[in-house]
Order: sequence, then structure tokens, then C-alpha cells
Amino acid sequence: MVYKIAVIPGDGTGPEQIREGMKVLTAVAELEGFKFEAVTYDFGGERYLRTGETLPDTALAELRQFDAIYLGAIGHPDVKPGILEKGILLRLRFELDQYINLRPVKLYEGVETPLKDKGPADIDFVVVRENTEGLYCGAGGFLKRGTQDEVAIQTSINTYKGVERCIRYAFEYCRRRNKKKKVTLCGKTNVLTYAFDLWERVFHQVGAEFPDIQRDYAHVDATCMWMVKNPDWFDVIVTDNMFGDIITDLGAIIQGGMGIAAGGNINPEGVSMFEPIGGSAPKYAGQNVINPLAAICAGAMMLEELGERKAAARIEQAVQTVCAKHLKSLAAGRMGYSTSEVGDLVVRYL
Amino acid sequence: MVYKIAVIPGDGTGPEQIREGMKVLTAVAELEGFKFEAVTYDFGGERYLRTGETLPDTALAELRQFDAIYLGAIGHPDVKPGILEKGILLRLRFELDQYINLRPVKLYEGVETPLKDKGPADIDFVVVRENTEGLYCGAGGFLKRGTQDEVAIQTSINTYKGVERCIRYAFEYCRRRNKKKKVTLCGKTNVLTYAFDLWERVFHQVGAEFPDIQRDYAHVDATCMWMVKNPDWFDVIVTDNMFGDIITDLGAIIQGGMGIAAGGNINPEGVSMFEPIGGSAPKYAGQNVINPLAAICAGAMMLEELGERKAAARIEQAVQTVCAKHLKSLAAGRMGYSTSEVGDLVVRYL
Ligand SMILES: CC(C)[C@H](C(=O)O)[C@@H](O)C(=O)O
Ligand SMILES: CC(C)[C@H](C(=O)O)[C@@H](O)C(=O)O
Repeated sequence: MVYKIAVIPGDGTGPEQIREGMKVLTAVAELEGFKFEAVTYDFGGERYLRTGETLPDTALAELRQFDAIYLGAIGHPDVKPGILEKGILLRLRFELDQYINLRPVKLYEGVETPLKDKGPADIDFVVVRENTEGLYCGAGGFLKRGTQDEVAIQTSINTYKGVERCIRYAFEYCRRRNKKKKVTLCGKTNVLTYAFDLWERVFHQVGAEFPDIQRDYAHVDATCMWMVKNPDWFDVIVTDNMFGDIITDLGAIIQGGMGIAAGGNINPEGVSMFEPIGGSAPKYAGQNVINPLAAICAGAMMLEELGERKAAARIEQAVQTVCAKHLKSLAAGRMGYSTSEVGDLVVRYL
Repeated sequence: MVYKIAVIPGDGTGPEQIREGMKVLTAVAELEGFKFEAVTYDFGGERYLRTGETLPDTALAELRQFDAIYLGAIGHPDVKPGILEKGILLRLRFELDQYINLRPVKLYEGVETPLKDKGPADIDFVVVRENTEGLYCGAGGFLKRGTQDEVAIQTSINTYKGVERCIRYAFEYCRRRNKKKKVTLCGKTNVLTYAFDLWERVFHQVGAEFPDIQRDYAHVDATCMWMVKNPDWFDVIVTDNMFGDIITDLGAIIQGGMGIAAGGNINPEGVSMFEPIGGSAPKYAGQNVINPLAAICAGAMMLEELGERKAAARIEQAVQTVCAKHLKSLAAGRMGYSTSEVGDLVVRYL
């Protein structure tokens, strides 16, 4: 089997992270008997500053031909915030209809969480975030911009189709995961009475097809509290794009921070994209000090989605061993190892 | 001085909390030489179930005549979620134009936070939440509701006037507070490019009038991470209604939970309303086990707003002493004291 992977190392520490990710992917492929054909694309801040281009249409057409996309990080100190995020990351999510943002939140043995009295048994859930609709759709506008009568409008658009496929994915994922067998809808039904009325109806309608899975509901404000106070409450959380953005970052911090948090932008019928969610961290770029585990975990998620379950599990296991036995901290510069040494360690334990 | 206070004890444990709050308010008034004239209103779940009424127009007209409103908690297990929140709490906020939701997040000595290695010196900031606009405006609707072509729309409306007065309040509050002298705008400028474009422009425009105050910006997802990882980063956070709802609950949990978290719904030129933010907790109702400190702190915030600074500070000091010297926990039933005993303790230390 040969998988065609588009690699977008991106900005800042992205390339160093992806370099270690590819090292691990190549090693596991050899062990498991498959191959990668990787094509690298230079989208990101440097290219934008040089050419004014974020993601050309021709490249988008090419990307559709791959089996998956492996993304480092997008974000450059000299580019106004918003341009690269919208022009590259969000554009890829939308154009490739990657309608699921999947974020496992799992505390590994040996990793420090900022929460008191919580260990690996307490922090082990998955957020299924809708990834193509809601407040991220870009709808909105201004009235009398720049005057004292200005009105700025931002609109969340939610479709039955978009909500249904996301919720169905969450229930199916929860069944496959086979742990607490509970899906929590995270919303704000008491205030967002249109958007979450749809979400709530579809949640119960789809959920009824999964009698083995418990249905649970929490307002987004309560969800954030519980993630800190009782994270063991959760198994699979399903939510909209904006709330998902918020609670997945909170999830990252309780599982030990950006050094370990990986995410998948998934189109189960199309081309999916996997990324460490930590950003480009330009101040650490080129120093071989950034933690590559998040990128390596993103690689494992990519293998899982490609159907290489055993290879994915091998990487996950190796990462857990490295966390438990070696790293002093997950923070850049404080791991006790360089970026490439961490990659080597993971390879050693494959 | 005689202050006219409208008291809405509300549902569940609300009346018990307010009873202790009034006990403390009455005691401090005597010590400081002012008086309360309190009128009680029975809005809440019971009345709604009996009469179908949430907040009659005539009552709203009466409420406008008071100096302040002291609210227990709204929420009844037999009433569909949303009805009382929208019919009473949100209606009061909107009709009385209480455009600021003020939420001090302060960890008191002796109170346990769920965060590792964080103490009172690390957790001491204030959230200024816009309280009358944004996603809470109720704008939105359905297309083809109940069909597979359904579209549900929820709109955030932000006005220059609403944003300006909120941001101005935050800068003025920060100057009065006189601590780190920093205001952080919490937004999502890279995605909500209409709403937070307005917020960001007004933030810098108003902020320029406060050269003594540092301006800081954080995306809402990063804000949640930092609240857990580096809460000492913050001094005053200003944000919109929805993000404010989320981060204030996260704030409540890191300061020790709902037992201590109080909030003010403030119209600096009108009638303001103060409340413990913990909800009605019906399962503890009538048992004299709920923690009344949040309601007592809300009472102190009310006095502060009424101009009784010294009395407010006396309550705050007494609450801190009770936390440091007496309570085993802030949780209902685990304080080591009954609800009324906690009220008595606060009175003793006034
Ligand atoms: C970079 C930004 C546009 C993005 C988002 O808001 O979705 C990020 O925060 C994420 O969660 O992947
Ligand atoms: C009860 C609910 C409508 C309310 C809100 O969302 O504002 C509450 O969560 C709060 O923060 O005061």
C-alpha cells in the first residue's frame, strides 16, 4: 500500500515538528509494511509575504488528489492575524468539506496536568467539533462602519445536513470507542434558541438510533466548569464550531498543553487533514527545542483515518512510553531532550 | 440614608441564600448607619407554574423605582429550561439596560482551587462582560424547520454604543482598581471578523484615552487556556456577552466554585441587580446546607455600587476571615456549618 500524503510544514516551528512526525511515520510504515509518497507544499507566512498568495486554486485542486494532508502550523509574526488562518487553514477545512474536527483529550502517564488530584484515569475523552458551519461561516457585515451608529453583525448558520452528519459521527465514534458510551451535547439551548434548538432536536433524533449510547446535555459554560472540576464525566462531547474551538483548547491545557494536543480535520468521504494544534511558536523556531509529540500524535491520527490501525496504535504506545519514561516536561526547551531526540525516542519504542 | 431594595429570592436554594445575605446586609447597615427598605417579589418557577407569569409588565415598572435588585436564583426542575432564564433574568438585564456583567474572580485564603500550585496571589482578576447585546439579543430564525433542508440562524448584533460603553467601563474600572493596570480584550478577531473588528477598533480608540492602562488581546480559546495555566496574567478582561458567559463560569471554578462566585448586572445610570451565580440547586433546597457566601458577596457588590464602600469592604473582609478560619469546604453540605451558621459567622466578623 502506498499512501499519497500532502505535507504542509508551514511556519515557525511547524517544519521541525513535521520533520519528526515524518521520521516516525516513515519508521512505522517500514515496520508495518506500507509506504508514503509525500509531496511538500510551502503554504504559509513566508510564501504569503513573498507572493501575496495564501492557497492558490490550482493547489487546492491538487490537494484533492491526496489520501491525506499533514499540516505543521500556520501563523507568522509579520502577517496580520486572520489572513493565513482564513486563507489557508479555514479555507482547507471548508473547501475539502472536513466537517469533523476530532480532538482526543487524554492525559498520558508521566504528563503533568495543571489540575489538582487528576490523573490519566480522569482525563480521557474526545471532542467532536463541527468544522464547516456555525459562526465560522463568515456571514455578517457592518452598518455605518466607523460611525457612532455602527452595527456589526456576525451570524451563525447551521444546517440540518451539517448538524446531522456531525452528530451521527459522534455517536458512531462513541460506539467504536466503546468506553463510557455517553455522548454529551455541549450547547446553550437556553439562550441560542434557534441554533441549539436544531442541534438538540437532531441530537435526540439521531441518538435514538443508538440505544446503547447514553445521551447527555451540558451548557457550554457548565461544560468548561466540569472539564476542570470533573473531567471524568465526559466520554464523547459533540458541539458546534465556535464552542468546539473554545473547549478543545481548554481540553489541550488539561491534558498537558500544546506539546501533546493533536487534531484531525476529517472528511470521512474525502481528504482529511491532521495537525498539532499548538500554533507556529515563532520564538522557538529553528532551535530544535520544540516538542514534536503533538505532530507525531497527529500522524498517528492520520494513520488511524487511513485505516492503518495497528501502526497508529504503535505510535500512540511509543509516545506514551516516552512521556512516562523520559520527558521532564512537555514544554519547549524543558523536555530534557531536543526536538530530534524526542523523535528518535519515539522511533526507538515503536 | 435609606436604600430601597427589591428582593427576588427566586427558586430552590435562592431564598435560603438571600435570607443570609439580608442578615449580613442588615447587620452592616446598622454598623455603618444606613437602612434598607426591602420589598420582596415572588418571581420564579413556583409563580410561573401557578400563574403562567414570569415577569409582569407592571412589576417591571415597579422595579425601575428601586435603588437596586437583589436576586437569589432562578430555575425550577418542572419548568422547561429557557423560560425562566429568558422571562426573568435576561428580561431584567435587557429591560433595565444593565449593560455590564461584572464578575470578580478572586481566590480567597483558605479556599481550595482545582488548579495545582495556584494561590490567592495568582487568581485575582475581574471580567467585564457586555450584558445586553451579541448573541444574547435573540435574533435569528429557522428556514424549513423540521425538514432535511432546515437552516437555523443565530445572530450576534453588536452596536458601537453598546461596545463603547462596555469597554469604557472596563478601562475606568481598571483604573479605579489600580492593580496591574491592564485590560485584556477577549475575542476571536481571526474568525469573527465583523463583530470583533468593531470590538477591536473601539478597544484601541477608547483605550487611547487611558495611557496609564496597558492594552492586551487574547483569543477566547487562548483566554480559557491561560485562565487555567497562568491566571496571574489577567487584571481586567473585557468581552462580549457569549464569551463572557463562558469565561466567567471558568473563572468561578478556579476561584473555588459556585459557593463563592457573585456577579453584578450593572446599569451605572439606572437600576442594577446582584446575584450569586450558582443557580437554584433544587436538590439542596430547604435543608439549610447551601453555601450563602456567594449571595453575601453579591450583597457586598450591591453596597459598593450604592456607594457604601466601607460597608462593602467590611463584608468582603468578614467573608475572607470566615473562609480562612472556619469553612472546611465551600460545597453544599460540606462546609462544616449550616447555611444560617455561615451567615452568623460573617455577621460576627463584620
Ligand atoms: C487558527 C484558528 C482559526 C483555529 C480555529 O479557530 O478554528 C484554531 O484556533 C483551531 O482551533 O484550530
Ligand atoms: C442562566 C443563563 C441565561 C445565564 C447566562 O447565560 O447569562 C447564566 O449562565 C449567567 O451567566 O448569568
